[in-house]
Amino acid sequence: MANKEIPYKIYLEESELPRQWYNVRAHMKNKPAPLLNPATYKPMTAEELEPVFCRELVQQELNDTDPWIDIPEEIVNFYKMYRPSPLVRAYCLEKKLGTPAKIYYKFEGNNTSGSHKLNSAIAQAYYAKKQGLKGVTTETGAGQWGTALSMACAYFDLDCKVYMVKVSYEQKPFRREVMRTYGATVTPSPSDTTEVGRKILAEHPGTTGSLGCAISEAVEAATSQEGYRYVLGSVLNQVLLHQTVIGLETKTAMDKYGIKPDIIIGCAGGGSNLGGLISPFMGEKLQGKADYQFIAVEPASCPSFTRGKFAYDFCDTGMICPLAKMYTLGSGFIPSANHAGGLRYHGMSSILSQLYHDGLMEARAVEQTSVFQAAEQFARVEGILPAPESSHAIRVAIDEALKCKETGEEKTILFGLTGTGYFDMVAYEKYNNGEMSDYIPTDKDLEAGFAGLPKVPENL
Amino acid sequence: MANKEIPYKIYLEESELPRQWYNVRAHMKNKPAPLLNPATYKPMTAEELEPVFCRELVQQELNDTDPWIDIPEEIVNFYKMYRPSPLVRAYCLEKKLGTPAKIYYKFEGNNTSGSHKLNSAIAQAYYAKKQGLKGVTTETGAGQWGTALSMACAYFDLDCKVYMVKVSYEQKPFRREVMRTYGATVTPSPSDTTEVGRKILAEHPGTTGSLGCAISEAVEAATSQEGYRYVLGSVLNQVLLHQTVIGLETKTAMDKYGIKPDIIIGCAGGGSNLGGLISPFMGEKLQGKADYQFIAVEPASCPSFTRGKFAYDFCDTGMICPLAKMYTLGSGFIPSANHAGGLRYHGMSSILSQLYHDGLMEARAVEQTSVFQAAEQFARVEGILPAPESSHAIRVAIDEALKCKETGEEKTILFGLTGTGYFDMVAYEKYNNGEMSDYIPTDKDLEAGFAGLPKVPENL
Repeated sequence: MANKEIPYKIYLEESELPRQWYNVRAHMKNKPAPLLNPATYKPMTAEELEPVFCRELVQQELNDTDPWIDIPEEIVNFYKMYRPSPLVRAYCLEKKLGTPAKIYYKFEGNNTSGSHKLNSAIAQAYYAKKQGLKGVTTETGAGQWGTALSMACAYFDLDCKVYMVKVSYEQKPFRREVMRTYGATVTPSPSDTTEVGRKILAEHPGTTGSLGCAISEAVEAATSQEGYRYVLGSVLNQVLLHQTVIGLETKTAMDKYGIKPDIIIGCAGGGSNLGGLISPFMGEKLQGKADYQFIAVEPASCPSFTRGKFAYDFCDTGMICPLAKMYTLGSGFIPSANHAGGLRYHGMSSILSQLYHDGLMEARAVEQTSVFQAAEQFARVEGILPAPESSHAIRVAIDEALKCKETGEEKTILFGLTGTGYFDMVAYEKYNNGEMSDYIPTDKDLEAGFAGLPKVPENL
Repeated sequence: MANKEIPYKIYLEESELPRQWYNVRAHMKNKPAPLLNPATYKPMTAEELEPVFCRELVQQELNDTDPWIDIPEEIVNFYKMYRPSPLVRAYCLEKKLGTPAKIYYKFEGNNTSGSHKLNSAIAQAYYAKKQGLKGVTTETGAGQWGTALSMACAYFDLDCKVYMVKVSYEQKPFRREVMRTYGATVTPSPSDTTEVGRKILAEHPGTTGSLGCAISEAVEAATSQEGYRYVLGSVLNQVLLHQTVIGLETKTAMDKYGIKPDIIIGCAGGGSNLGGLISPFMGEKLQGKADYQFIAVEPASCPSFTRGKFAYDFCDTGMICPLAKMYTLGSGFIPSANHAGGLRYHGMSSILSQLYHDGLMEARAVEQTSVFQAAEQFARVEGILPAPESSHAIRVAIDEALKCKETGEEKTILFGLTGTGYFDMVAYEKYNNGEMSDYIPTDKDLEAGFAGLPKVPENL
């Protein structure tokens, strides 16, 4: 089907939807380092992980050998309600930029959670239901993950307890109400519903909370109640696995029309959308079947890849979770204010960290004012109002397209448009009023973060 | 292609998108009554309308003979950015209800304006650009129409001045910022930028504005500046014409799979989405080719069809627009608080009014608490968080499906899901907190509205 006219939007048929997730670890020569028990520095076993995570998800977390994992029928059916997501040819953006480059984006925002998060939420809820659990707990900051999980739990009739960082709970009441509409219990964190919450409240009565604290409360809530487990929306291997539905659909659509991307771009917070988008392409690269340029885009205010260290670190600020080897700024690093809440994470997926360490992908850090410039330009010609997170990828896609304009190269650029910005209008208002500023941590800020890294013995 | 398996979502190919709008007036035996000049009670001529509206749109407004109007290529290309919209089979809702009915909905919410309004906004902006105008003015209440028009004007590089009812401007800052991101100037109405605005402010210093006042300001702003025209998002014949893209896509998709709806349901404020959805089906009914049951759903708090009068009335509260013959509660009728802002209009499209008067369609009024019950039930099983307006149609679709459950009839039900509720979380919060109430105007309230109807001589 090569060379046929490319429509504005490519939608796959239902029969073309992926039936298996792709596990890129199976084809990695250097496997991502295992999670470590922070007390013993020994790899976490399935038995140690199962009190916290659902059984089948633990298996997926530890599985670095099987390249394909079947997607259960119930999940495929849920995917059919909002997938395939469109692969869009950005004809209008290309015209506006006057570039010879061909730009494509995979748009994950056309569902009520407003982002790709639903792809993993529904999988995690399914396995919890299958295990006969009563419910799940989680934390949420900006709220996309909490919304996605609430939707998934409503579908499977599971209880859903969301610990929402108090400042977001108060400043983002609309996100909170979406979760409540889907039947979730939303608790501002820190709260008096957990021991750790009460302790933090006693020590810091005026605190507005943090993601680390919310994680601690959610984990305690899961492990202290019969029939509950904790679930997480990014960073973990299992989450990247579920998100490969993005890349698999993209690849099928591109293959159908004989399109081969030269550059693949995604924003990176914990790494789930980027990992999901690039995995099938990276698999080809790892097997020597094809070559692609991969670019991870992160905020200059939270530059895990570009200025972080490749080291073992805690996944949470509360230091109660296992240690993961990753590019990190230190679990105590507090990113300065940035409106892309989903990218304000100190660490990065172990899988992506290893790939980056091995020189298989690049990374760029961009400042938020230039990100919102790209967002505005994109919105005005392509119609979609993008999330601040997604706009990081737009920024670099536009930069690459403008380079092509200079060189005359007709490169094919693919980027992931992870979500919509409808709940981020406070940020857009700042930008519209010319009140947005950029923040770049100093070397001293970073040193402070690195100082908190755990002292894991080398050569384990 | 009859009897093949029906997917969850039917997406047409780009090549199957409509190239012509359908003008149902051409097949109506009793044509909608013409707009009247309120000073002379004579039908408005094209010359009288052109100082206010774009030339080509005036022609569309007055054309009740041509059944098909070509969609210009530029508009088709814009449609390709967010259309076709999916026709969804509500498998999960059917299962939840345990009904033998087959339920389909045409979902218009997957674009940044969040509703079907963009279908007409882009057409109106195109004709303004083609006429060589500098810009357009309009009013907006809840903000969907203003958002859609801002997007359309950004695309064609037209100036866009939106008069936003002051109370909405202050209470819905996020909608306002979406419009500003698309480059529109948003002015809270009443304002000191127009004569009528200054007059109203002098008389009522503390007023929070009204749609009628905003219309008056927008019309004055258009007619007092060189190169501007006024545009409107509903009620008018031209708007219903553009919205037939909804019904045409739906019919093509259904025909492709051999589906024939028994009942077609839509919410009705000014009537644009309902008219757009049903027109192609109504055309068949008018020509004796097929029969369908049509149901318009309106809020019990603003019951134009079910309790209004079929009479000539002003389209605006300010009484500066032409008179239209329609089902109306009187232009002075103030609907009591209802969260479906898009349905709080005193009148109704002349086309739909005539069809209803001729017994070709039915109408039902529903109360808002039951509407939000339906919205919540729908959201939890179908994933999409619906707009309060759209949820009126969901309410009646569920009612009809439950009737089928009682009788065992396997009816096919089609409804229009016009938009998403992401900017309506204040309403959902009220519902979630059990603080929502219902409002039904008394007969005395209605009499007061009717008393303000203009005294148009009979037998014109």
